[in-house]
Amino acid sequence: MTTPTLLPHHDGSPLHVSTQTPALGELVRVRLRVPADYPALRAVRTLSNPDHEPAWTEATELGTADGWTWWEAPIVVRNRRHGYRWLLVHESGRVEWLNQAGLSDLETRDADDFALIAHPAPPEWMYDAVMYQVFPDRFARSAAADRHPTPDWAIPATWDEPVDPVMPGRSQQFYGGDLDGIREHLDHLVGLGVNLLYLTPFFPAASNHRYDASSFTSVDPLLGGDEALIRLVEAAHERGIRVIGDLTTNHSGDRHEWFQAALGNPEAPEGEFYYFTDAAHTRYESWLGTPTLPKFNWASPGLRRRFIEGPDSVVAQWLKPPFSLDGWRIDVANMTGRLGDVDLNAEVRQLTRQTMIETNPDTILIAEITNDASGDLTGDGWHGAMTYPSFARPLWAWLCEPTGEPYLTGDGQERTEPWFFGQPVGGIPRYDARQFVGAVTRFTAGIPWRVRLGNMQTLDSHDTARFATNAPAEV
Amino acid sequence: MTTPTLLPHHDGSPLHVSTQTPALGELVRVRLRVPADYPALRAVRTLSNPDHEPAWTEATELGTADGWTWWEAPIVVRNRRHGYRWLLVHESGRVEWLNQAGLSDLETRDADDFALIAHPAPPEWMYDAVMYQVFPDRFARSAAADRHPTPDWAIPATWDEPVDPVMPGRSQQFYGGDLDGIREHLDHLVGLGVNLLYLTPFFPAASNHRYDASSFTSVDPLLGGDEALIRLVEAAHERGIRVIGDLTTNHSGDRHEWFQAALGNPEAPEGEFYYFTDAAHTRYESWLGTPTLPKFNWASPGLRRRFIEGPDSVVAQWLKPPFSLDGWRIDVANMTGRLGDVDLNAEVRQLTRQTMIETNPDTILIAEITNDASGDLTGDGWHGAMTYPSFARPLWAWLCEPTGEPYLTGDGQERTEPWFFGQPVGGIPRYDARQFVGAVTRFTAGIPWRVRLGNMQTLDSHDTARFATNAPAEV
Repeated sequence: MTTPTLLPHHDGSPLHVSTQTPALGELVRVRLRVPADYPALRAVRTLSNPDHEPAWTEATELGTADGWTWWEAPIVVRNRRHGYRWLLVHESGRVEWLNQAGLSDLETRDADDFALIAHPAPPEWMYDAVMYQVFPDRFARSAAADRHPTPDWAIPATWDEPVDPVMPGRSQQFYGGDLDGIREHLDHLVGLGVNLLYLTPFFPAASNHRYDASSFTSVDPLLGGDEALIRLVEAAHERGIRVIGDLTTNHSGDRHEWFQAALGNPEAPEGEFYYFTDAAHTRYESWLGTPTLPKFNWASPGLRRRFIEGPDSVVAQWLKPPFSLDGWRIDVANMTGRLGDVDLNAEVRQLTRQTMIETNPDTILIAEITNDASGDLTGDGWHGAMTYPSFARPLWAWLCEPTGEPYLTGDGQERTEPWFFGQPVGGIPRYDARQFVGAVTRFTAGIPWRVRLGNMQTLDSHDTARFATNAPAEV
Repeated sequence: MTTPTLLPHHDGSPLHVSTQTPALGELVRVRLRVPADYPALRAVRTLSNPDHEPAWTEATELGTADGWTWWEAPIVVRNRRHGYRWLLVHESGRVEWLNQAGLSDLETRDADDFALIAHPAPPEWMYDAVMYQVFPDRFARSAAADRHPTPDWAIPATWDEPVDPVMPGRSQQFYGGDLDGIREHLDHLVGLGVNLLYLTPFFPAASNHRYDASSFTSVDPLLGGDEALIRLVEAAHERGIRVIGDLTTNHSGDRHEWFQAALGNPEAPEGEFYYFTDAAHTRYESWLGTPTLPKFNWASPGLRRRFIEGPDSVVAQWLKPPFSLDGWRIDVANMTGRLGDVDLNAEVRQLTRQTMIETNPDTILIAEITNDASGDLTGDGWHGAMTYPSFARPLWAWLCEPTGEPYLTGDGQERTEPWFFGQPVGGIPRYDARQFVGAVTRFTAGIPWRVRLGNMQTLDSHDTARFATNAPAEV
């Protein structure tokens, strides 16, 4: 037996799968490539799991080209997530299994199967997206920004003033960037090769991050209002840049018009939109116990209608002209619809996507799932995730060289231990290249190929330190 | 750094978890033990995932005894399956994670977490059950068996005649064992240490295995009828042996009274119990395309009421006196409620268990899930599974010495390749002890401890060859 330098390979790409958009009942051809100098194989088979019962197909050897021997097998798609794995039977009698976690001499688990997805597909453009994230308060000020009044919650800052990491400045320090400011710098993004602009929330709120929306029906006047968004999206589209917004489906701000209508008013129809915990509707569930962020109760049909269901919903409104957004990033998608005994997450993501398809199918839906995202990435709603363990965290662990420079936390404590995504693990772990691959593989093995391609491969985000803070000079 | 011979350990047992029956909102104390000569730890923490958002707790060092240093941490149960893992921060800065898959220097996935289960608990006796499976046609004939008429479907066999492995004999060869025959041999089971008797189906049917029931409301007269079951259960209980039955929730036989009422009769209320595929109700979905086993449609409220919901359901009827069964094994649980776009499996298992709790909570519910069972074993319904990849298959692969003796398949083909659970992998794989442990770990890592304890640790079953066929003499 030789020791091959390459290993048998399969993934969900067009080279290996006959269609990226299979339908239920469709016969799909899947192809495995095996290094030509790999030990001889007696048979290659696929094992699927339709309706959770094993089903096998035989692969046929197609031939050898460019050092690879190709095998092809038919699979009929029986479920909307139709998992499959490869079995390689060696002439020697040895068997190997191949799934999204790699090769194994032991049987493998259903969750790590390759998967054909028969849910509606994302638009093709998602696969080529080069995304640039903008936090509107901090990117650029247009000339009009000087004329915006300072809101009641704001701690005004001049443009060159250092960022204040300590509360309340952390959330309330206000630089006054606006949407026209972004528009004026679109050519900079074009120059970077960007074709997708992700705006963190543009709704009126009581913070610089605006994840505490007080309304979902208008653009914050401080950012230039609805007209500024229309101008920005038009100018971006003219340059081949698509634009997605940011919705908080887990919570609103406590100044939100729905919450204000419901608070202390048990008769209000909006009362069922939230989890009030007393009869007077003065106490309520909120995001991690933060009272300014009351949590939505997705059991409410009224909330669904106003927010995510149908052509008049918030989700639909911004995808239609004149706003014409190209999709949504969903904040705290991981917690959305989940509270204790309740889990309505799948319903929310499926209904949200259904509304988007009915409004404009040429849009994308990306979920913030900061940690292990695989359980929610079945292809039934989210096209991908803003998630850290499958790329950003392993990358930092592999490449960073912590500076040890002190920094301040939100509550004003000085730390010298490098920040690592809020995890109390003693700073940035040190991975070698093999560990980097191991971590990426572990956290993508449960994600169907098509959905994996929708994941944001972020270096960092508005919730993290900048990658450059700890990156070595040559990276 | 020393090379420890033992590793840090945690599991769900009372030594490591303060309660086996936590409630939502309850504070549970979990304990980790670390070999006293393990490298020094700076901190030990737990990471939970309530509502899919990370939550950390600090462990306190309790002290050292018998070579182990113990750490304890509090966890408040927020979800009915509340996952958690351990983080070990070494004095050296190295971190390790511990979950049900073992120790890892990389971050770990939610599915492999340890888990506290706040669903209703199984009865304590399940944990001490030593089960004996009886296939009633083949265990023992009472004197009364001679008086039973030969049914129309049967191919009569004398008691010492060899088993016919080829269809139709495979399903229709009829030895005429009966329930009184089992009763007469209960002391044999007592002598073996058995305290749980699992009967494959005792309902009237048209096969020796009776998985094609023609009714769920009476015991097959060929087995002695209802009175024989009552006698058997009473005699078993007198000896400290509990008895569970076997229900087919995926399908009935095509002779079933419900199916016969519905077939060709679109007006029948039972029409919605099955998946008829034509207007005349003559074509229908069935188990793996076998027309004698029409598949149940669990979207039907009528089917739920008659079969699994409430005190008059089939599920309840047999748990009450005079039958007083101690639980159910559910046949083809893995496919139950699943067909293409539909997946009602969780509803069926939850509703079934709820009915059992209301009827007699001192009962168990075990699911046949022949392959990877982890996805369905969340603790919400099934107490455990009859499943092969987590024990039986690795055990065979580790210990068997295939004889190479030829045998006949159901369709009469002679094979010399040893049978291995129907998998076309070229016979029984050969695992070393490390691979055995690896396979057991892989297929139990996703199963909460309490549910794992409910799994049947079968050597073989009525669906497999006998373990002894290929076992070496010393095993």
